[in-house]
Amino acid sequence: MLTQKDFDVKLLGTQEIQNPVPERDWVPENGGIVYPSSIRELDAYTAAGETIPHFRQAGATAKIFHDPAWTKAAILTAGGLCPGLNDVIKFLIRTLKRQYRVPLVYGIRYGYRGLVPQFHLEPMILTEDVVDGIHEIGGTILGSSRGRQDEKIMVDTLDRMNINVLFCVGGDGTLRCAHDIAGEVQRRNLKISVIGIPKTIDNDIGFIDKSFGFETAIYTSAHFVTAAHNEAEGAYNGIGLVKVMGRDSGFIAAAATLGNSHVNYCLVPENPFTLDGDGMKSLLPNLEDRLAERHHAVILVAEGAGQNLFETESARRDASGNKLHQDIGLLLKKRINEYFAAKNIEVNIKYFDPSYAIRSLPASGTDAVFCAMLAQNAVHAAMSGYTDVVIGHWHNDFTLVPIPLATRQRKKIDLTSPLWKSVRATVRM
Amino acid sequence: MLTQKDFDVKLLGTQEIQNPVPERDWVPENGGIVYPSSIRELDAYTAAGETIPHFRQAGATAKIFHDPAWTKAAILTAGGLCPGLNDVIKFLIRTLKRQYRVPLVYGIRYGYRGLVPQFHLEPMILTEDVVDGIHEIGGTILGSSRGRQDEKIMVDTLDRMNINVLFCVGGDGTLRCAHDIAGEVQRRNLKISVIGIPKTIDNDIGFIDKSFGFETAIYTSAHFVTAAHNEAEGAYNGIGLVKVMGRDSGFIAAAATLGNSHVNYCLVPENPFTLDGDGMKSLLPNLEDRLAERHHAVILVAEGAGQNLFETESARRDASGNKLHQDIGLLLKKRINEYFAAKNIEVNIKYFDPSYAIRSLPASGTDAVFCAMLAQNAVHAAMSGYTDVVIGHWHNDFTLVPIPLATRQRKKIDLTSPLWKSVRATVRM
Amino acid sequence: MLTQKDFDVKLLGTQEIQNPVPERDWVPENGGIVYPSSIRELDAYTAAGETIPHFRQAGATAKIFHDPAWTKAAILTAGGLCPGLNDVIKFLIRTLKRQYRVPLVYGIRYGYRGLVPQFHLEPMILTEDVVDGIHEIGGTILGSSRGRQDEKIMVDTLDRMNINVLFCVGGDGTLRCAHDIAGEVQRRNLKISVIGIPKTIDNDIGFIDKSFGFETAIYTSAHFVTAAHNEAEGAYNGIGLVKVMGRDSGFIAAAATLGNSHVNYCLVPENPFTLDGDGMKSLLPNLEDRLAERHHAVILVAEGAGQNLFETESARRDASGNKLHQDIGLLLKKRINEYFAAKNIEVNIKYFDPSYAIRSLPASGTDAVFCAMLAQNAVHAAMSGYTDVVIGHWHNDFTLVPIPLATRQRKKIDLTSPLWKSVRATVRM
Amino acid sequence: MLTQKDFDVKLLGTQEIQNPVPERDWVPENGGIVYPSSIRELDAYTAAGETIPHFRQAGATAKIFHDPAWTKAAILTAGGLCPGLNDVIKFLIRTLKRQYRVPLVYGIRYGYRGLVPQFHLEPMILTEDVVDGIHEIGGTILGSSRGRQDEKIMVDTLDRMNINVLFCVGGDGTLRCAHDIAGEVQRRNLKISVIGIPKTIDNDIGFIDKSFGFETAIYTSAHFVTAAHNEAEGAYNGIGLVKVMGRDSGFIAAAATLGNSHVNYCLVPENPFTLDGDGMKSLLPNLEDRLAERHHAVILVAEGAGQNLFETESARRDASGNKLHQDIGLLLKKRINEYFAAKNIEVNIKYFDPSYAIRSLPASGTDAVFCAMLAQNAVHAAMSGYTDVVIGHWHNDFTLVPIPLATRQRKKIDLTSPLWKSVRATVRM
Repeated sequence: MLTQKDFDVKLLGTQEIQNPVPERDWVPENGGIVYPSSIRELDAYTAAGETIPHFRQAGATAKIFHDPAWTKAAILTAGGLCPGLNDVIKFLIRTLKRQYRVPLVYGIRYGYRGLVPQFHLEPMILTEDVVDGIHEIGGTILGSSRGRQDEKIMVDTLDRMNINVLFCVGGDGTLRCAHDIAGEVQRRNLKISVIGIPKTIDNDIGFIDKSFGFETAIYTSAHFVTAAHNEAEGAYNGIGLVKVMGRDSGFIAAAATLGNSHVNYCLVPENPFTLDGDGMKSLLPNLEDRLAERHHAVILVAEGAGQNLFETESARRDASGNKLHQDIGLLLKKRINEYFAAKNIEVNIKYFDPSYAIRSLPASGTDAVFCAMLAQNAVHAAMSGYTDVVIGHWHNDFTLVPIPLATRQRKKIDLTSPLWKSVRATVRM
Repeated sequence: MLTQKDFDVKLLGTQEIQNPVPERDWVPENGGIVYPSSIRELDAYTAAGETIPHFRQAGATAKIFHDPAWTKAAILTAGGLCPGLNDVIKFLIRTLKRQYRVPLVYGIRYGYRGLVPQFHLEPMILTEDVVDGIHEIGGTILGSSRGRQDEKIMVDTLDRMNINVLFCVGGDGTLRCAHDIAGEVQRRNLKISVIGIPKTIDNDIGFIDKSFGFETAIYTSAHFVTAAHNEAEGAYNGIGLVKVMGRDSGFIAAAATLGNSHVNYCLVPENPFTLDGDGMKSLLPNLEDRLAERHHAVILVAEGAGQNLFETESARRDASGNKLHQDIGLLLKKRINEYFAAKNIEVNIKYFDPSYAIRSLPASGTDAVFCAMLAQNAVHAAMSGYTDVVIGHWHNDFTLVPIPLATRQRKKIDLTSPLWKSVRATVRM
Repeated sequence: MLTQKDFDVKLLGTQEIQNPVPERDWVPENGGIVYPSSIRELDAYTAAGETIPHFRQAGATAKIFHDPAWTKAAILTAGGLCPGLNDVIKFLIRTLKRQYRVPLVYGIRYGYRGLVPQFHLEPMILTEDVVDGIHEIGGTILGSSRGRQDEKIMVDTLDRMNINVLFCVGGDGTLRCAHDIAGEVQRRNLKISVIGIPKTIDNDIGFIDKSFGFETAIYTSAHFVTAAHNEAEGAYNGIGLVKVMGRDSGFIAAAATLGNSHVNYCLVPENPFTLDGDGMKSLLPNLEDRLAERHHAVILVAEGAGQNLFETESARRDASGNKLHQDIGLLLKKRINEYFAAKNIEVNIKYFDPSYAIRSLPASGTDAVFCAMLAQNAVHAAMSGYTDVVIGHWHNDFTLVPIPLATRQRKKIDLTSPLWKSVRATVRM
Repeated sequence: MLTQKDFDVKLLGTQEIQNPVPERDWVPENGGIVYPSSIRELDAYTAAGETIPHFRQAGATAKIFHDPAWTKAAILTAGGLCPGLNDVIKFLIRTLKRQYRVPLVYGIRYGYRGLVPQFHLEPMILTEDVVDGIHEIGGTILGSSRGRQDEKIMVDTLDRMNINVLFCVGGDGTLRCAHDIAGEVQRRNLKISVIGIPKTIDNDIGFIDKSFGFETAIYTSAHFVTAAHNEAEGAYNGIGLVKVMGRDSGFIAAAATLGNSHVNYCLVPENPFTLDGDGMKSLLPNLEDRLAERHHAVILVAEGAGQNLFETESARRDASGNKLHQDIGLLLKKRINEYFAAKNIEVNIKYFDPSYAIRSLPASGTDAVFCAMLAQNAVHAAMSGYTDVVIGHWHNDFTLVPIPLATRQRKKIDLTSPLWKSVRATVRM
């Protein structure tokens, strides 16, 4: 059970310096965000006599901890690409430079490696001119890498470079490593704010209702669904099979299904299915019915769906420690072909695996708005002296979430949620 | 002051029929959505001893009012185009047909006119086949028109055609007219659910935190900002001036400013400015400084901004009764040219007015997801027998909002909100 | 050696009917297109005393063979998808209906299968309303299939359905089958024009300088090259590897290389290369140098490139009789990883195989213009009574090319051509 | 009448230096491009005993004039924006640097102004790093301006800066000014190659069959036609009116009409029309018929069309000396409204003027290929010592065209050409 303590955020020390950001832009004191949204939930807490858990609202504070004139900041991006990385980088720098007049901002190359001297990766000096147009370019100008490095060595580097503020943009693994750095910083009693900016195209970080890159992923997935639909319609019993990101959570698949209603099957990790059994959740007989009726079908599958269907479980992990899934797309393609071949029914499968083509795009539209505000709030949090914290989002507000809370468990699709009800209403399975 | 009564939704009669939607998809009884999100706000209500206002959560109910087998539904779209109209239409039909098996759905042509016999506009019969691919096409397959018609005549038509469920997709004016229809229905004691689906690309309907089409507008505006930036950089003292939608509220301009950070000036109705005075909010001297420093600038202006700058106030109104604004874009172009000509400074202005090219697109990405869920919930509300209600959205949930509450006042940018703080931090003015 | 005879086009009979197309739109009599374009080439023909080969210019003729009022037309699409299929279909129908007032146009389903009764594929009736918006949709509304059918059975069907004009849109195999149908038609002395519309996204049909879909393929490939570049820059020694279409000819790879100059290596079937030898055309050592210098690289490979690098030659063929290539993309990925692993150099390869996502798009821009004009000319050729002919393009003009000439040999990149000189000048290899 | 002399290109002096470009990439000696393409045309020349006019093929020559090691190059862009300017700039630099190892390349700011000291515009130093990603960005990194400057002053600057090679990217006016510079260079007996790169989004430069930016303009226009169509269908008697570029020639309007077949009326300068007369070319009665039949219409109008319809002729000219047209779009909007108001017929016009949003985009697809090859050939021409020449394109080959020939007269749509025949067949007027 969560207690109020789990929501508390750490501060490096007393906030004594007047914030150069004008007063009208300060966040209200005690501006916490209430966690429950329904009356039922609220009543339950009240009835149980529990304190209602809540997050601190992100934003500029009246007093800050780090003196801007003496601040050196550093930014790193780690893990796989995600739309919006360059937007976040641009707005970190813009906010550090324009609102706080921080004189020096380093770009650390290739994730945590850039903090380990043996890799000989010279940091970039980041100015507003360097980043002026990068919000229209995908990827990350800093480069990225997977995996963690020794926090002792990295804190040595931060200390030697006199860095006071470190922004770590990355997923689960990246945030855990940021937490370790924050711990080492605390052990040495250094004054370095470690701020996590949660990057998960899968939108699966706990206690954060939205993450950057997700909207762009949905937007772009729609193009591939249309392509799959066109291929499916273009052949007799054509099947367009699209694998999208979603290692443990099917949010991309679910949203993309509603975002382009040509999808007939939406397969996600949270909702187990079988291939050829008798039950309602048996894909192949259901697909056979669909083809008999319409002669074409589109299947959208999250990469983490149906892992139980593999005979031997995968033991491989990537450098970030994520379990590497076996390829459900290829398995489905094989099993569908076998099933219909055995029945002497012609099918024509076209398989799409567009992940890299999605995650390497720049963020667009309101996703870019989200990146900008996220980065601004990350700078405010850092200058205020918060540490070991990620910038979250809850109920239309940006929040401060302790890293351990954010990495405690992945967010998953609630099969009783309005989202999944809506998906279920529009697909065959 | 709002009272609980303002949040109450009307029901045509007792819900006595078992909902054909499976039980797992029903919305929880008493699933109201809490209105305040901050502890401070919550405490204030509690301290004052007031009932916390809240919305009913939208969704399928256990029992419904209209018998699907006997139901005839009609859909109309009114007012200007907006991304997502066809998505909404498709999902209304899909939900009526698949989840409730409603046998007959009419498409009313050209807004409320289609309900007035003298216009001789035969309704369309809408089936799933007819709407299969329309979610990829902008505009509305039903056609639209501005202005209201006599509710008595329209209710005559609904009654004569035995329509039980009417979906009105449109803005302020459309919703008010829907409310009048609902009133006339009530006076005649008919059993017709009138459900409003709020359409406002400006995202300015009260008590609704997000409206369909808005995300696509932000996404598309970014292309025009980039074009304006390229034009501005391509000429000496180049100025790219982009007018976007936003009659009374500057949400599009504000979000588009963060969505494409090439914008240097964001002018919205909520934040008055002068042209050539001395103060901090004086555009032309500020622009002169910017050009001296960088030799190019991008200005984003909402159509409703700066109306005080016109000498004679506009008296024109469109057929929907909206006051027609004078063209702030053309005024700015003229005044900028005059100001710099008087100072013998060369400037090169390129003016963009992309409204029609934005609003006529299909909804994309999560905006399409929103349309789908909105339409599904509209059907649930209708079949449950609710009437005189619009489908809203609050804190990630879909809600039922009484039409009078939704049309009471327009939503505007709060200049103390996180959104505007973020905008202010990234522009010169 | 080609003789004049190879350029002669067949006519079903005497053109006796006045063309309903107005006179100003007729193509000039004797409007042949000269084949050579350089003085040197021209001189060579003249010196050798040879007749200069030429094509007949396509277009409406003064007199036609088929009486429009009695004409029944049929359209089929065969082989893989290609951008522009629906544009071609739309303009065939529009031209048949508007310019010739042909009363009945059938859409044959799923390629040649639709002409074989045993498949039970009812033809569609194609009207202008049916095809009004299809030019904005990818794929083919008719469906397609690979492989040929018995021409005797198909001509039985054509005869029984009283079809006078058959349009076959497809590649090499499709055109050869069309030629066989035309032969069978001739043997039976029927009056059926068989017109081929060459579909090859690879742009590799002989004696035709441009084919539809190609431009859209180049346009779309650029997005994947950018994605590959972003992925490559985002990782240490990142390599973006993109496989594009090009079974026997590398035109897509060559043009896409110039179309997005992030490409560093362009591998095509016409230009053999080795992997790890010493020579100048050895990919892996060259790549090693590139990575040492810049730490990222983009490789663009045509699917037919490097087939000599496989130990055992592929014996598989698809239903159209095309030899199925082994996957050069996967081979390169494997060999690159092995090469650098053996040298203990980290590389990060991201592999893109976007073929289906490219070919399933609608044609755009001047590619759509090309489709429209191609289809118009196909109708003119058909109504004039030409048969066994494809509509080609040469030197900015549309031409009539006998099917046997068009299918005689594939067009390949001339390594001494300006195109390849330009590619060579911009890549490392 | 043209004589052979009109096709002759000027050379600064003897080509004595071995070209560093490898021999396999040299263009063949005497590789002239034949001008006529039809047998009829060819026969006419032969019968008349005339020499067949031809262009010199562009490309690297065996010997060159300028010693690369001592060469200083300069690039300028003048006139309005056009898709592909940055592609051209990038490939000029890439070719100068990679193929010729030219040590210094200047970017002249804001067109010819940058060569006039009084404007204090410091040139940029252009390296491969500076231009690495600019092919994905619209506009011109050099800036542009309209109008000419004194060639004496400009040649003073070129001489003082020791520039040997000047690339002028621009339209008619720009090329004429380049010709004047070349003349002044010749009078002073300097060794400066002046190479024009023809920029005309209208595709209207004489003796050049294709110009860069045109394809992208067609591609992008299609989006606005779709928007206009959606707006037209969305209202009763809706009319989507789109004005596209085309000051004197209607190539964009013509191609865009075929490129998006939603267009019903294509109005170009070459094809006069009346508004309300009786004849076949009378727009308003024709439009009335269309609306009566279909209740919506799309009109595409080139900016230079219908200038005869204005009562007083425009006397305004822009800084480049181009006559400024009166706004045919606004005139049409006004006259259409008046015509139907007088007849008491409701119409709803939506007017689109997307020029800036089209011309400020980057070149895409085969348009970018064209830019790359054009720029490469410009560098070859310059290093070979040619001067007073533009790089043209004819029959799939790049050519050298004397500037006076290219600027002699604008290319216009031939109303008897296949292009216009195709347009006429698909529109009402």
